[in-house]
Amino acid sequence: MTRIRLGMVGGGNDAFIGGVHRIASRIDDRFELVAGALSSTPGKSAASAEALGIRRSYGSFEEMALAEAARDDGIEAVSIVTPNHVHAAAAKAFLAQGIHVICDKPLTATMAEATALEKAVSGAHALFILTHNYTGYPMIRQAREMVRTGALGKLRIVQAEYPQDWLTSPMEKEGLKQAEWRTDPSRSGAGGSIGDIGTHAHNLACFVSGLQVESLAADLHCFGAGRTLDDNAHVMLRFAEGAKGLLWSSQVAPGNENALKLRIYGDKGGLEWSQEDPNYLWFTPHGEPKRLLTRNGAGAIEASQAVSRIPGGHPEGYLEGFATIYTEAADAIRAVQSGAKISAAMGNLPGIEAGMDGMRFINACVTSSKNNAAWTKL
Amino acid sequence: MTRIRLGMVGGGNDAFIGGVHRIASRIDDRFELVAGALSSTPGKSAASAEALGIRRSYGSFEEMALAEAARDDGIEAVSIVTPNHVHAAAAKAFLAQGIHVICDKPLTATMAEATALEKAVSGAHALFILTHNYTGYPMIRQAREMVRTGALGKLRIVQAEYPQDWLTSPMEKEGLKQAEWRTDPSRSGAGGSIGDIGTHAHNLACFVSGLQVESLAADLHCFGAGRTLDDNAHVMLRFAEGAKGLLWSSQVAPGNENALKLRIYGDKGGLEWSQEDPNYLWFTPHGEPKRLLTRNGAGAIEASQAVSRIPGGHPEGYLEGFATIYTEAADAIRAVQSGAKISAAMGNLPGIEAGMDGMRFINACVTSSKNNAAWTKL
Amino acid sequence: MTRIRLGMVGGGNDAFIGGVHRIASRIDDRFELVAGALSSTPGKSAASAEALGIRRSYGSFEEMALAEAARDDGIEAVSIVTPNHVHAAAAKAFLAQGIHVICDKPLTATMAEATALEKAVSGAHALFILTHNYTGYPMIRQAREMVRTGALGKLRIVQAEYPQDWLTSPMEKEGLKQAEWRTDPSRSGAGGSIGDIGTHAHNLACFVSGLQVESLAADLHCFGAGRTLDDNAHVMLRFAEGAKGLLWSSQVAPGNENALKLRIYGDKGGLEWSQEDPNYLWFTPHGEPKRLLTRNGAGAIEASQAVSRIPGGHPEGYLEGFATIYTEAADAIRAVQSGAKISAAMGNLPGIEAGMDGMRFINACVTSSKNNAAWTKL
Amino acid sequence: MTRIRLGMVGGGNDAFIGGVHRIASRIDDRFELVAGALSSTPGKSAASAEALGIRRSYGSFEEMALAEAARDDGIEAVSIVTPNHVHAAAAKAFLAQGIHVICDKPLTATMAEATALEKAVSGAHALFILTHNYTGYPMIRQAREMVRTGALGKLRIVQAEYPQDWLTSPMEKEGLKQAEWRTDPSRSGAGGSIGDIGTHAHNLACFVSGLQVESLAADLHCFGAGRTLDDNAHVMLRFAEGAKGLLWSSQVAPGNENALKLRIYGDKGGLEWSQEDPNYLWFTPHGEPKRLLTRNGAGAIEASQAVSRIPGGHPEGYLEGFATIYTEAADAIRAVQSGAKISAAMGNLPGIEAGMDGMRFINACVTSSKNNAAWTKL
Repeated sequence: MTRIRLGMVGGGNDAFIGGVHRIASRIDDRFELVAGALSSTPGKSAASAEALGIRRSYGSFEEMALAEAARDDGIEAVSIVTPNHVHAAAAKAFLAQGIHVICDKPLTATMAEATALEKAVSGAHALFILTHNYTGYPMIRQAREMVRTGALGKLRIVQAEYPQDWLTSPMEKEGLKQAEWRTDPSRSGAGGSIGDIGTHAHNLACFVSGLQVESLAADLHCFGAGRTLDDNAHVMLRFAEGAKGLLWSSQVAPGNENALKLRIYGDKGGLEWSQEDPNYLWFTPHGEPKRLLTRNGAGAIEASQAVSRIPGGHPEGYLEGFATIYTEAADAIRAVQSGAKISAAMGNLPGIEAGMDGMRFINACVTSSKNNAAWTKL
Repeated sequence: MTRIRLGMVGGGNDAFIGGVHRIASRIDDRFELVAGALSSTPGKSAASAEALGIRRSYGSFEEMALAEAARDDGIEAVSIVTPNHVHAAAAKAFLAQGIHVICDKPLTATMAEATALEKAVSGAHALFILTHNYTGYPMIRQAREMVRTGALGKLRIVQAEYPQDWLTSPMEKEGLKQAEWRTDPSRSGAGGSIGDIGTHAHNLACFVSGLQVESLAADLHCFGAGRTLDDNAHVMLRFAEGAKGLLWSSQVAPGNENALKLRIYGDKGGLEWSQEDPNYLWFTPHGEPKRLLTRNGAGAIEASQAVSRIPGGHPEGYLEGFATIYTEAADAIRAVQSGAKISAAMGNLPGIEAGMDGMRFINACVTSSKNNAAWTKL
Repeated sequence: MTRIRLGMVGGGNDAFIGGVHRIASRIDDRFELVAGALSSTPGKSAASAEALGIRRSYGSFEEMALAEAARDDGIEAVSIVTPNHVHAAAAKAFLAQGIHVICDKPLTATMAEATALEKAVSGAHALFILTHNYTGYPMIRQAREMVRTGALGKLRIVQAEYPQDWLTSPMEKEGLKQAEWRTDPSRSGAGGSIGDIGTHAHNLACFVSGLQVESLAADLHCFGAGRTLDDNAHVMLRFAEGAKGLLWSSQVAPGNENALKLRIYGDKGGLEWSQEDPNYLWFTPHGEPKRLLTRNGAGAIEASQAVSRIPGGHPEGYLEGFATIYTEAADAIRAVQSGAKISAAMGNLPGIEAGMDGMRFINACVTSSKNNAAWTKL
Repeated sequence: MTRIRLGMVGGGNDAFIGGVHRIASRIDDRFELVAGALSSTPGKSAASAEALGIRRSYGSFEEMALAEAARDDGIEAVSIVTPNHVHAAAAKAFLAQGIHVICDKPLTATMAEATALEKAVSGAHALFILTHNYTGYPMIRQAREMVRTGALGKLRIVQAEYPQDWLTSPMEKEGLKQAEWRTDPSRSGAGGSIGDIGTHAHNLACFVSGLQVESLAADLHCFGAGRTLDDNAHVMLRFAEGAKGLLWSSQVAPGNENALKLRIYGDKGGLEWSQEDPNYLWFTPHGEPKRLLTRNGAGAIEASQAVSRIPGGHPEGYLEGFATIYTEAADAIRAVQSGAKISAAMGNLPGIEAGMDGMRFINACVTSSKNNAAWTKL
């Protein structure tokens, strides 16, 4: 077993998501992080790299892409963990060098960037993987498989919600960097909560249900004084095949830390899952008692067992779910290096299409809301 | 202490809600049920009355209203627990005789009936009380008072949902009377799930928040084959003072028995309550740990203690919450009998206004949905 | 249907359990409370009776027993809801008159009183019913029936606990009457928490498991300064047929309001139930997912349905469970009045035997603890 | 930052705990696994090492200890993850070479081995760390600190339980290796469930309470046919300073996967924690509402934040708690290499003393149970 040589763009000090990617890449021991352009200046980047024990530091992602591509032992893949508006340019630089890209979500800040990136991905000889990490949770895999094999019958209702509370007070005015860029349209794009977390809820709803949203009616709100991006969003969904849904994202709901929740109902049964208690999946076959399915416990199926590491009752968490995306990325990278076609290697991994779906979702929400919640096709 | 002499219209055998009203009227010992027109035929009515130990049975509510009004020891109040389309006529008959009316919800089957009843109530010398029973739960009283006194700050978001699962399969075709009339527009009115239970969610959201819904956008669905009334409804709400909300009612969500849930968030805190676990109220002052307030436990305030019967940890339930409406109705009846004005005696009791609000809510939902979820004023 | 004429001894103002008995007797409309000796003095008794709308008030239970027995319309049954040390004398007075007795638990304050009462009961032409009210909860009935019919296989482990927190601080020194008599050996008997609530846990463990405790090893503690009765008790149990158990009662465990909990495990499955959430019963067939059985929901069986009033999802509580004991008492009284033998009429109702079991349990705990937790037979 | 060179003894294919140690050692990137004696034969060891990407494989731990000690780039530390009866010999071999030892629990299979190991540790120039991993959970650290700083007042009651269900049926007869050695006294030692998991509960109770068990009364049971080691244990505890406790370990309680739970009560408040939902800590200051403290959420203190990786609401799990032990081991190793004394470097890490405490606990339980649950000093 040889580890994949990995680089990272973004993820210097203070960055929450960069550290998450690094841990996720290590958990299953499939990657070795050897190069980075971790911050916006060469000096900061070098300091972060040294602190993290990363051998090679670069002053910019452009430089890194060229230099690493020129080395025999250069990176095989790169993780892009910058704010949204940098995603497209960085991804294109590495794809152009045939370096596989693992990119944080949402895809980009603007639809124009997204379209350009889509084109770059389609012409590239490398994988583009989007870390919709919540799809890596074992019980989400099980839910998806149960839906696919008919445990719920024909789907009727899909309720997704993702409330948080950290922007209840104006953190962006108090020097919190996480809050600053997320409330700034030039770095986040047109969506506030709907882009940052609503896209996760949308992605998960589609991933598990196997259905696409056809149209939506959205009412976006700015409750925080001085904000221009939504911090709360209410959305009604119409899915393909007649299913209906509600989606709620919020960053101003006190008492909700990261309360992503999915509930799906069909004519034969229902499923309920909550991200904060991810090892549980509630399943009710209609007319029978509710069952508490547990990760690697009784009732677990191959779809969840295959991405579990430890026995039931020993909770896995957010980092393990994230690690599964990395591990499947590693499998895909090795497959491509062994000659597999990129489309085949992707398998269930979220990629450019999931990213474009997310951008279309954000855009439709923003457009609908501007039109007083008129139904808007995706 | 003398018990109030009570009559009942509807509530014969098989009727769920009639039995509930009878127990609720007994729990605090303020009523004595002495007369009834319990079923649609004199024979059935008499049989039910005898089985229940009710002294006087009548063949119709019209007969009962006249006869009881003529007696010195006639009923002082009547409970109307029929299907919706009978509410208006029955209520008017008793109000015309000065007999106080305690009526099940929703107000009526049609807006025309509602308007006529509203007129009758305004001209009557008797109370009209609508049993929006969920307002009787102690922790709902506490939530309302906490909102009123500013524990949540300025309200931003009000999420109400009321999913059930009993109509997932076509029970109305299998001889279940409860299902038959609830899916029949001629007996239920224009709303299906939105009328039967959505009105409860709407009422509770307004009761606790102290806010009125100004406009809404509704997407009603009929999932059950052959149904003409909604069995699932998704509604976006705009409240007075800028608060926003979502409301979901469903009777086709497997795994939900009677899962009425209310969540309210302001700029200082959040509250969450679930009807199936009614003795708990989650309160999060923003930036502090979540607190589990319990009925008559630490953290309980006068507003909830006043309508509690037993100590914390000894669960009260649905029947006790319902009984509180009856007990407050008894207080109001005695007050009116002692000379109080009707409006003063009503206090916080739900009456014709709450009923009209509910009818306007149902109508707005149906109208909005017919107009492709266009925003509709109430 | 004619209501049973009921009297009450004890239960004047301030008394928690008297009010509970009165509501419980009304819920299913089988009793009419017509006479009382509610307090320790004639004046207080009369005032309480008037406030409660009870027609006949007596200055003492002795007087009441004689007077009521002499009336054609005298009480048919009496509820005894005094502190423990009065139970025996009061019960004997009514039994001697052939008046059926419904008595609060524990049976008596001392074993001598208990033995005398046992003798009186065995010679009486009236029922003696002990309100071990927790046996009236529907899901407890279901649990018992599931055990009886083998859903758990052969029983191995029975864990019962009943922690409260209200005596964490010295309430008995702050004028709380409930605390005063419960910490006073002359009124409570030899057991503190073990007598007041440990007996409930013991009774419930035996009721559901169908097993008797053969011997126990108990470690009783007095944490509150100046107390002579235990406020915390740890007990190891050995049941008949080889099952083992732990029992914990406490009144000094902050965060526990009334947290009676029962868990039973056999070689085929496990059951878990909590009094504070009584409408749920967790059932795990070994090797299968945990199931959440709900009162009157999917998975409910005749044993629980028979003692349920309203549909699943509409929570019943403590008062309804208590009411079931009263309703079954009413059935038993009517049966005896129709000629049934007393033993046959008792059915599953807790009576003198359950009471003696409880007294033996308290005594064994006290004895064992004095002997440094030596194993002590019941 | 340079990673610590790590070796591993045991942990070949099929071994649950070996994989856990490997992931735990990687999560915070402080170790590099470079050598192993993973299985009982050189061939199996080499195959496992190759599959795991470990450079150097040895046929035995003796060989590995000598060879690695002789290399300039030899391992600095070794993880011992074999069945219990190998712990002592392996640990002594590495300690003798000055190689730091990270050893799985319980310490050894027999008290004789334990005593010998204790002597070896006291004479060694290397650290001996025992992976009582549950002490690494952030909310356990917070609980300990809250107890230490008086949030509970004077401790009264400590309830620890650790039920599992996997040995409900005779898995050891069905070829499950995990079950085979755990039910075999020659490999596990004198304790069955009490040694395998009861020691965790004991360790955690002492770690959080800061109290030592002075004496105990234990009733051990073998429910599984043919077993000689306990699969269920009931224990009454007497702690220093007058606190009392109950401890329950079981492997035959259907519906319990890995349900380690700790509850601690003092005269000012109570704490409750459950391993299966480790990001939550319930705290009740006496007389106030229960609070749900969350990892890195509102209410989190330095003691838990210091060992957290990601924000509140993003659940960490078993592997992260385990990783914290490894990370603190890394800190201790680097400290010793920089000249710190071993005792000082250990800090709060569980070591030989915690191991000896665990052995004394197992021994006392077995002894007490043989003496019919007589009180036995530790």
